[in-house]
Amino acid sequence: MTEQPQAEQPPKRIEIQHPSPAVDGGRFAAKRCAGDTVTVSAEIFRDGHELLRAVVAYRAPGEGSWREAEMVPIDAHLDGVRWAGRFELDRIGRWQYTIEAWTDLFGSWREEIQRKLAAGQRELASELSEGIVLLRAAASEHADRPAMNNADRALIEHALTTVEQRDLPQSAKHDIALGPELAAAMQRCQERHGSVTLPAPLALEVDRVRARFGAWYELFPRSWGGLKGVEKQLPRLAELGFDVIYLPPIHPIGHANRKGRDNALTARAQDPGSPWAIGDQSGGHDAVHAELGTIDDLRSLTKTAKEHQIDVALDFAIQCSADHPWLEEHPEWFHHRPDGTLKYAENPPKRYQDIYNVNWESPDWRGLWEALLEVVLGWVDCGVKAFRVDNPHTKPFAFWEYLIGEVHAGDREVIFLAEAFTKRAVMRHLAKLGFSQSYTYFTWKNSRHELIEYVSELAHSGEHEYFRPNFFANTPDILHSYLQHGGRPAFEARLVLAATLSPSWGIYSGFEHCENVPVQEGSEEYLHSEKYETKQRTLDGPLTKLIGRLNHARRDNPALQELSNVVFLETANEALIAYAKQSQGNTVITVVNIDPHQAQEGLAVVPASLGLPPSFTAHDLLGGERFQWRIGPNYVRLAPGERQAHVNRVEL
Amino acid sequence: MTEQPQAEQPPKRIEIQHPSPAVDGGRFAAKRCAGDTVTVSAEIFRDGHELLRAVVAYRAPGEGSWREAEMVPIDAHLDGVRWAGRFELDRIGRWQYTIEAWTDLFGSWREEIQRKLAAGQRELASELSEGIVLLRAAASEHADRPAMNNADRALIEHALTTVEQRDLPQSAKHDIALGPELAAAMQRCQERHGSVTLPAPLALEVDRVRARFGAWYELFPRSWGGLKGVEKQLPRLAELGFDVIYLPPIHPIGHANRKGRDNALTARAQDPGSPWAIGDQSGGHDAVHAELGTIDDLRSLTKTAKEHQIDVALDFAIQCSADHPWLEEHPEWFHHRPDGTLKYAENPPKRYQDIYNVNWESPDWRGLWEALLEVVLGWVDCGVKAFRVDNPHTKPFAFWEYLIGEVHAGDREVIFLAEAFTKRAVMRHLAKLGFSQSYTYFTWKNSRHELIEYVSELAHSGEHEYFRPNFFANTPDILHSYLQHGGRPAFEARLVLAATLSPSWGIYSGFEHCENVPVQEGSEEYLHSEKYETKQRTLDGPLTKLIGRLNHARRDNPALQELSNVVFLETANEALIAYAKQSQGNTVITVVNIDPHQAQEGLAVVPASLGLPPSFTAHDLLGGERFQWRIGPNYVRLAPGERQAHVNRVEL
Repeated sequence: MTEQPQAEQPPKRIEIQHPSPAVDGGRFAAKRCAGDTVTVSAEIFRDGHELLRAVVAYRAPGEGSWREAEMVPIDAHLDGVRWAGRFELDRIGRWQYTIEAWTDLFGSWREEIQRKLAAGQRELASELSEGIVLLRAAASEHADRPAMNNADRALIEHALTTVEQRDLPQSAKHDIALGPELAAAMQRCQERHGSVTLPAPLALEVDRVRARFGAWYELFPRSWGGLKGVEKQLPRLAELGFDVIYLPPIHPIGHANRKGRDNALTARAQDPGSPWAIGDQSGGHDAVHAELGTIDDLRSLTKTAKEHQIDVALDFAIQCSADHPWLEEHPEWFHHRPDGTLKYAENPPKRYQDIYNVNWESPDWRGLWEALLEVVLGWVDCGVKAFRVDNPHTKPFAFWEYLIGEVHAGDREVIFLAEAFTKRAVMRHLAKLGFSQSYTYFTWKNSRHELIEYVSELAHSGEHEYFRPNFFANTPDILHSYLQHGGRPAFEARLVLAATLSPSWGIYSGFEHCENVPVQEGSEEYLHSEKYETKQRTLDGPLTKLIGRLNHARRDNPALQELSNVVFLETANEALIAYAKQSQGNTVITVVNIDPHQAQEGLAVVPASLGLPPSFTAHDLLGGERFQWRIGPNYVRLAPGERQAHVNRVEL
Repeated sequence: MTEQPQAEQPPKRIEIQHPSPAVDGGRFAAKRCAGDTVTVSAEIFRDGHELLRAVVAYRAPGEGSWREAEMVPIDAHLDGVRWAGRFELDRIGRWQYTIEAWTDLFGSWREEIQRKLAAGQRELASELSEGIVLLRAAASEHADRPAMNNADRALIEHALTTVEQRDLPQSAKHDIALGPELAAAMQRCQERHGSVTLPAPLALEVDRVRARFGAWYELFPRSWGGLKGVEKQLPRLAELGFDVIYLPPIHPIGHANRKGRDNALTARAQDPGSPWAIGDQSGGHDAVHAELGTIDDLRSLTKTAKEHQIDVALDFAIQCSADHPWLEEHPEWFHHRPDGTLKYAENPPKRYQDIYNVNWESPDWRGLWEALLEVVLGWVDCGVKAFRVDNPHTKPFAFWEYLIGEVHAGDREVIFLAEAFTKRAVMRHLAKLGFSQSYTYFTWKNSRHELIEYVSELAHSGEHEYFRPNFFANTPDILHSYLQHGGRPAFEARLVLAATLSPSWGIYSGFEHCENVPVQEGSEEYLHSEKYETKQRTLDGPLTKLIGRLNHARRDNPALQELSNVVFLETANEALIAYAKQSQGNTVITVVNIDPHQAQEGLAVVPASLGLPPSFTAHDLLGGERFQWRIGPNYVRLAPGERQAHVNRVEL
């Protein structure tokens, strides 16, 4: 039940508890991006009144040795037991940190003497003799400490000589012993008495900034003239400020049980089929659909995209069409009934006769994992540095940890976006395992209350340490009824919300044209969905101007590049939502009228806690106007058709 | 960075996260009391759509084998990933629990068939063949599962025979395969597929109920005629509803540097000294002061107390007076300066020349630990089952873990109360290490805002899993200015607050007489403090009637025996505080006027969430009146001198 005290030395007296950042007590890595400064903190305390010192020790990826940054107590709330230190993450990869704390014997002794002197005590010879012991110990070399620098040694030895002189006045000795330079030297030289560290180092996974911050545009290449056609759009996409172009699967599409227009069970001869029914006789996950182009076209696309600082993201969807080569080459990777028949995908009463899921409990599960890894590595080799992963929540967690780990071992720049619309805990777990970012419930959060509750959870519940949202305003599967019934003002409101609430956001093409007709009332599916047919797409919708302004405002304002800096403001009107974001001295206050039908009046109540001056200029980055705003209530009126939102940069 | 998949079987697919109760991820035990039913919960999920099953497995102290209780999903908020199960803690000691979860293959299969039938599918022969595989697997014996009962075996074998018959209609086979009795039998018999458990069992420390719930009375035996005099007071103390009598140190008191009246630096001949200056030539921590009686008197006191269901708590203070035998017998247990002089206790500019602290870093620290354990065990042998530990935060944490563990190994009934007025994190840590309960900041929380904030933290921040407050309304060291200036109404308000907010509460004698004169304005010390002199005490103060009523109300109402069931109510008046507590169908609503000077009017707004009927009788357990109250606002007026508080039991 308890340990008998058997050790030669008494047990350590210092506790280091609740280090942060840490996910699930250190079981998973917290996430950061290159260039971030990370603040490490912990509760550090011991019994008694002795002073403590602490450092955070950290190690960059591939570095053998540890560097140290000083920690200091930061909060009065917990009576000074919370300590913090900071360091910069100057490269991507897996960083490690730990915390070391020790009792500051010389500092404790020095503080005691100072308090006694302040109280008028002068008979301190006995106390000074204790200080001499500490000085002597520091002056002697120890194998387990770094060598002293000469200045420190000289200072300490001088202090020793002086304090031990018989004929010097006591007060002169006090001055020498309590000198601040001596104290600083002693901090560097004295033994780390009773030193304690965390039981194990904690990890930080550091990604490139695009894992957190980026504007995504989803398009079906077949509607843009294939991969070459997409390549031609890159200058325009760059102009609009997009950072990532995401392509649904570009592989051959199965013929057996191919879906027709509007998800019809039988396809006509000219129907192209769903890109998610992957594979035919010509190839599977590692092939490019002949009508979209070639592997070389993809290499060319990623190369040109890179010149525009744009990432090309591919879809990684593991299911296979009935015609996929793997069904014959590796029948053991698929589900069979006891009677030998293959099981197609179904979620009763729904049946997906055009696709087969792999069997993760296959006797050759290792072969399957390796083949899937090969697929991803092959595309990475073509310059694809981002993957949108289809339904990762229906595949084993351990597989994702393996896949992402292996890919990152070869190329740490690769970004994985999880398309998991499922239980919150499962979405969180996928993020813990390594997904760089995730789709969210944003499309279904349309009221002020819903948005504030949801974004507050994402930003402030601790989830932000590892879960990075990507706010897609629509997807080929999700046309929310708010968009169906709200007309252009609804599209504008959702654009502004997505782009200013979340560092990563995206749209699926058609959004900029305000496409809003569902396949039937009550459905979130598009009429004549591009999933089942080819469209003629152009980048000239009525919302492109707003999109460009938003994306450029995001790039120009660090405040819009973070999530957990969001502060919601009172508006005195349920149809108005307002929030401030602050970062690096930059403040942006966004106000959106979420009622697409009527003008709404209300307030944006700027709290004093933002630290702004009593009055300031609010420069609307969408309309260009400048308003005189102040701490406290500011009148706002937003009318559909005139102006749906303010994105106001604070100018001082 | 990631594990290569090397295992023969694919990795497990189920996650069990954030089990509760757990303290610091399982590093420390959560606390409960005998008779409690504990609810164990966790987030349990896997990839995909298969159904899961889970149990909590638990083991009583000393039991070799594990029992199981079923867990079921409990909340819609996290989409059903939070599961819970319950079991009763029928004895004191260290319990263990773990959680096991597995994939319910038969249940998942059964649900799929049901959904297909509901969708009108009838061609399910291939699906049935999958069910047969599962039934056959369950019917065969496995070494790693308990033997099947005969009824289950017969049912499963009957189902197998029926479903495999060629000439039976398909629909009859469906009915057999989907029968609820068969499903229940399969739950008992089928393999726990892909079973996962917590990495290690978690612990629950189960105390007797008095560790959580009790009324404490502190008295200096020298003011009551010694131990025999105290014994005579037991019937009266029992009548007033006290559960624990706490005695400051009863050991011999040092003569060297003895403190005089009002903490004078020099004592007069007749001054008895502070009981915390422990030890003289006649003995130390294991002796009884001759003027208080003998060891046998203490045995007699604890025996009579036990007959009244009263505990006697002794003070455990580790410091020694200059005359303590240990200073000569074990000089190595104390601090010495380099010049050989002993260091008395000081906290500059304060000096405690009458006491010496032990040196926890002594070479013979083990001898010191063992001697201190012997001291406590000696008093336990005299029938002392509770200790109030003086300043535990200035002694090493590891020592307390050792001491409490060793004492509990011999007698698990012993209760330790920590007198640590220090940093919150340190107070919490002492509780995690094993202290049964702790003094708190209650004496300094006198406004409505402070009380709500502080009690909410104690009750709802997670701390309640291991930190049990004891709300002392005063101590020999703490006479708060609220009491100094508020007269009897202030004493009444604090009595009601302490007794109804915290399951454990206490007073130091004199409180019932409304003693309120400080040694000087601005000090929390009593004038003519009993710490330095002997008083003549009697148990007949003006507040004894109120104390008796409060203690009996506490015993009669389970709602008042818990902490974390507290719900604060709106009062529309900052001088009125109101809170409801509910437990086991019992509801008590307390309203206190914390203004000792003026009558206050306001509301007690009863929220619908308490689940009470629209109107009900509120029976004031202090005054005896019955009021008609209702959900929503209830008018309240509380006037000093007439009635300072309501303690209303809800009668339906």
